[in-house]
Amino acid sequence: MVARKRSHHQHGTPNRPRFWGRHAVAAALDNPQRKVLRAWATRDAAAAMNFPKEVAVTFADVADLGRLVPGDAPHQGVVVEAEPLEEVWLDEVLGRAGERAVLLVLDQVTDPHNVGAILRTAAAFGAAGVIVTERHAPADTGVLAKAASGALELVPLVRAVNLSRALEQLKEAGFWLYGLDERGDAAIDTLDLKGRVCIVLGAEGEGLRRLTAERCDRLVTIPTQAALAALNVSNAAAVAAYEWARRRP
Amino acid sequence: MVARKRSHHQHGTPNRPRFWGRHAVAAALDNPQRKVLRAWATRDAAAAMNFPKEVAVTFADVADLGRLVPGDAPHQGVVVEAEPLEEVWLDEVLGRAGERAVLLVLDQVTDPHNVGAILRTAAAFGAAGVIVTERHAPADTGVLAKAASGALELVPLVRAVNLSRALEQLKEAGFWLYGLDERGDAAIDTLDLKGRVCIVLGAEGEGLRRLTAERCDRLVTIPTQAALAALNVSNAAAVAAYEWARRRP
Repeated sequence: MVARKRSHHQHGTPNRPRFWGRHAVAAALDNPQRKVLRAWATRDAAAAMNFPKEVAVTFADVADLGRLVPGDAPHQGVVVEAEPLEEVWLDEVLGRAGERAVLLVLDQVTDPHNVGAILRTAAAFGAAGVIVTERHAPADTGVLAKAASGALELVPLVRAVNLSRALEQLKEAGFWLYGLDERGDAAIDTLDLKGRVCIVLGAEGEGLRRLTAERCDRLVTIPTQAALAALNVSNAAAVAAYEWARRRP
Repeated sequence: MVARKRSHHQHGTPNRPRFWGRHAVAAALDNPQRKVLRAWATRDAAAAMNFPKEVAVTFADVADLGRLVPGDAPHQGVVVEAEPLEEVWLDEVLGRAGERAVLLVLDQVTDPHNVGAILRTAAAFGAAGVIVTERHAPADTGVLAKAASGALELVPLVRAVNLSRALEQLKEAGFWLYGLDERGDAAIDTLDLKGRVCIVLGAEGEGLRRLTAERCDRLVTIPTQAALAALNVSNAAAVAAYEWARRRP
């Protein structure tokens, strides 16, 4: 392997997140709630992106762009710096959720690839939102946005300061709380999943915290082989959201 | 166990892949087909790992271990160097597949996180194997192994030199080939998925190549919302494998 000098340049900050990759950037530009501050792009990518004229675009080559993003992040010729979205409150999400709705709750899932992929799943299956813990959760960084492939701009992402209290609030709003947990006493495909449903998922390895599991109405499993029981958390979320979506009347 | 031919596909240190993370390393140690050559570990991790005495263990601190793995790879206190597995032939996988079986076929899926997560899914749902293209696919590197969380040691991974020919061979062996593709004319949950089934998935963005799509018996979709149709490829594989597994008699 060729030794390469890596830039220690900041790759965006929580106050100025950077996004890269064509889907993530196009979604940020399309989102009226998202203020894009500036952009760097190859001439080819800029031609494909349709930047609004208020966004200053700096033409750059592929190597320059590589220094604006972490590690080997696949920037696809375009990087933008933006303002963070305004925070979404649980009340708003509950107010907009239908009588049949699903929410995905992540209990201290820290990996931004996983959280991003789960946002993408939430968009794909029409979930009303994703709720994460305020601490032990990734910021809405570029890695998360890239993995979300545009869904960060579409799916309400709530950061709950106190997850236990948020779960109580969900119950009061008529959500039935299913915790995905290998100790569960029912397989998810045996449930009816009508009405308002919450799927609660824990971090890789640790699973649901005790208090989180206790708050759930029921612990349920995804039926897997004994050999290697656990799915990756984003895959588990995809299966659960799919199971909910396929029951759509 | 099956006979395997030598792999010539190592990224990183040629013919000496490194693995890290407790699940990936424990699975490598447990696999009689995998020769682990040496190990580096913190004292805590070494105490937890139960290294066989023929593996030389060098005690190291967390920072030293960080230098043995790429980027911010989460090594969890343990890194090993091993010999690659011998490669699996499609014939062997077909010979061992049952009358009801599922295989996952990846058409030029290059991201090692995705391929690793798909191996993990394959293990979780009891797939008979995963078939990748010989070119445009990741080698069985540490990143893949970490994402597979042990499944690289459990699930036969076939590298097909000519995918089109491999698909023909699968048909001759009685597999029905379903290509996941947004042009599909049926949703996956409307199929019966009996007998021998292959799920064929394309790369992020590109999807199935033309020739691959033509080889499929049928193109099918995962029913998603219009807003953002595409799931991440590993999530799509998880949903498809789950859909197959839940029909298990």
